[in-house]
Amino acid sequence: MEIGNTNWNFPTTIWFGSDRIEDLPAACKQIGIKNPLFVTDEGLVKLEIVATALNTLEKSAISFSVYSDVQGNPTGKNVTKGVEHYRKHGHDGVIAFGGGSAIDAAKTIAFMSGQTKSIWDFEDAGDNWSYADVNGIAPIIAIPTTAGTGSEVGRASVILDEENCTKKIIYHPKMLPEIVISDPKLTIGLPPHITAWTGVDAMVHAIEAFCAPGYHPMAEGIAVEAIRLIAKYLPKAFKNGNDLEARGQMLVAASMGATAFQKGLGSVHSVAHQLGAIYNKQHGLLNAIILPYALAQNSDVIEEKMNYLAKVLDLESLGADAVIAYLIALRAALNIPNTLVEIGVDNEKAIQIGEMAFKDPSTPSNAKPVDAKDLENLFRAAQSGDLTYIK
Amino acid sequence: MEIGNTNWNFPTTIWFGSDRIEDLPAACKQIGIKNPLFVTDEGLVKLEIVATALNTLEKSAISFSVYSDVQGNPTGKNVTKGVEHYRKHGHDGVIAFGGGSAIDAAKTIAFMSGQTKSIWDFEDAGDNWSYADVNGIAPIIAIPTTAGTGSEVGRASVILDEENCTKKIIYHPKMLPEIVISDPKLTIGLPPHITAWTGVDAMVHAIEAFCAPGYHPMAEGIAVEAIRLIAKYLPKAFKNGNDLEARGQMLVAASMGATAFQKGLGSVHSVAHQLGAIYNKQHGLLNAIILPYALAQNSDVIEEKMNYLAKVLDLESLGADAVIAYLIALRAALNIPNTLVEIGVDNEKAIQIGEMAFKDPSTPSNAKPVDAKDLENLFRAAQSGDLTYIK
Repeated sequence: MEIGNTNWNFPTTIWFGSDRIEDLPAACKQIGIKNPLFVTDEGLVKLEIVATALNTLEKSAISFSVYSDVQGNPTGKNVTKGVEHYRKHGHDGVIAFGGGSAIDAAKTIAFMSGQTKSIWDFEDAGDNWSYADVNGIAPIIAIPTTAGTGSEVGRASVILDEENCTKKIIYHPKMLPEIVISDPKLTIGLPPHITAWTGVDAMVHAIEAFCAPGYHPMAEGIAVEAIRLIAKYLPKAFKNGNDLEARGQMLVAASMGATAFQKGLGSVHSVAHQLGAIYNKQHGLLNAIILPYALAQNSDVIEEKMNYLAKVLDLESLGADAVIAYLIALRAALNIPNTLVEIGVDNEKAIQIGEMAFKDPSTPSNAKPVDAKDLENLFRAAQSGDLTYIK
Repeated sequence: MEIGNTNWNFPTTIWFGSDRIEDLPAACKQIGIKNPLFVTDEGLVKLEIVATALNTLEKSAISFSVYSDVQGNPTGKNVTKGVEHYRKHGHDGVIAFGGGSAIDAAKTIAFMSGQTKSIWDFEDAGDNWSYADVNGIAPIIAIPTTAGTGSEVGRASVILDEENCTKKIIYHPKMLPEIVISDPKLTIGLPPHITAWTGVDAMVHAIEAFCAPGYHPMAEGIAVEAIRLIAKYLPKAFKNGNDLEARGQMLVAASMGATAFQKGLGSVHSVAHQLGAIYNKQHGLLNAIILPYALAQNSDVIEEKMNYLAKVLDLESLGADAVIAYLIALRAALNIPNTLVEIGVDNEKAIQIGEMAFKDPSTPSNAKPVDAKDLENLFRAAQSGDLTYIK
């Protein structure tokens, strides 16, 4: 199947297609950005795709500067320094270019560029967001270079508070990028293991959103279709990174996963956020390892949904066990380990992790209510592979 | 299943729940409307649900006036008189209350309230919309009282140009209502035949969008889930109009059908629009009668999609024939006739209908390319029940 260029209008304006990066100057023009700050991360900034993107701006005589002091699991300091840079150079908008870390940092820089309060005052709780100065939020163009996080269609960022070693969600409705450029060619160079980890991250978003107990059929429809696309195209993108159709379908599926999780996430994210903060491991990899254990723990309340997924995925039998077996096989095919101990996570902080995970904003929307002990047990199961912790 | 109140943010802000009509003053306040024009149709205005809605405004001391000179298949004149009324009373926003006719008329009144050009200058073609004065578009709160059209989440209206006896689509992105109040209790009083016709209309939106050839997985995911919900809940809402869960699920499914058809519609709508204009028949009823014939005509290009639908709907066999048989059975259960002749449509204008349908904006997104003769034959088949026209 040949996928041509298409433009969509929900959840935000999306310009999809190979070489759509060439439309970056048009995107700046459409939303009135004349002097963008180009935010990416410290690894990406050296790559050819960044040069390609910057070249489109140069050709159109658009002034810009680059800020790339962004690490994986980006920190409050990365944001604060970026805001200083933004103000010093008199920018009037942000181009968020990269994976989840770069886009999360960029969105937060755009948000904070015109605020007087501190970043942590806007942690996603109660109506904190409503105290922001809406006129102080810079417009954002987001350009994902991985197919996973879906941060390009989200109204929140996850930022590490280094002092407390806690990942915090910063939220404001106006943090939603105004235009997303989804160009599959930008993801061609991703190494297979990053393709796998980020791809399963998108799968986790869709599955946790689908299983969240709220009523939101639109999110559920999007989630199920995302799961179907990822099941079909992630193995292809992993095997052949140059498969543009698979790369494109995965980019779209990742945006869909993030659109769906407006409905909520669950215990996979509750635990993974803590491990990301403590052990600085890649978010998608953590999610991928924890996912089947969390489904097993939730299995008594999601049987009907798992039956439907099994049908959509053409599995040979129905139910949570069939879906879990399928996911374990998918993970193996993507060379993702079964347990956290295999990636160097010990169990010494299990109790603390359970307690921290319980406070995570993803916990209340888990498929069923869980307490700190349940989350500790989920972590212990995923860490060791010992299912007796959750049965 | 008990569905509580929920608020969603895509495709637009939706406030869902029984008795959410009580939040109408809060909606006015949130988007800064102080003196709304309440637009409904000539039938609805006499009903208790209108009194209930107006009462919420009175209790909150919000000034307003009512305009109800809107017929089914609303006309350009209905809009023009509404705009005069709007300007005369110095309104600053529109409450669109009713089925597709009232909401379409209300959206167009809001759009035209501050324009200097004529309504037909904004027919959906090329970039006509871009010549509108964006600051002259009044904000809209939409409150659907039928579960079908989904106009409450759409950025277009269908208005009858009486001079040419043609239905024209008026489009502008800012015609999307800012807040939708989806209150299932407002649909309780719908008689069974209207429940059936509008409900199948929503089904047609979702099926035509799903079958349209463009690439838009998000729309497809929403369409499939809408089809699943309508299959499950439309017979319940038809049998027992007081079933609040079924009424609520149908309201949401109708919004989903309209969200999905941003991807495109097809030949069912191409033909139905002409019949609505010429014979003044209810749009959903026309769609419901034409649907299976159109699927039969398209069946050679939609087999894979029909297989998937058959699986999602738990049909006993796969393929287009299975889905068509299911739809015919559903239609019979809803007391909807098989042919247009049964509702008084003769075949004297068949050639003209084919030619007009070919020019309809829904035609280019039909599952496969069709010409005026194909559409004439589709009409002849649906009119007479004679399938040889399309085989």
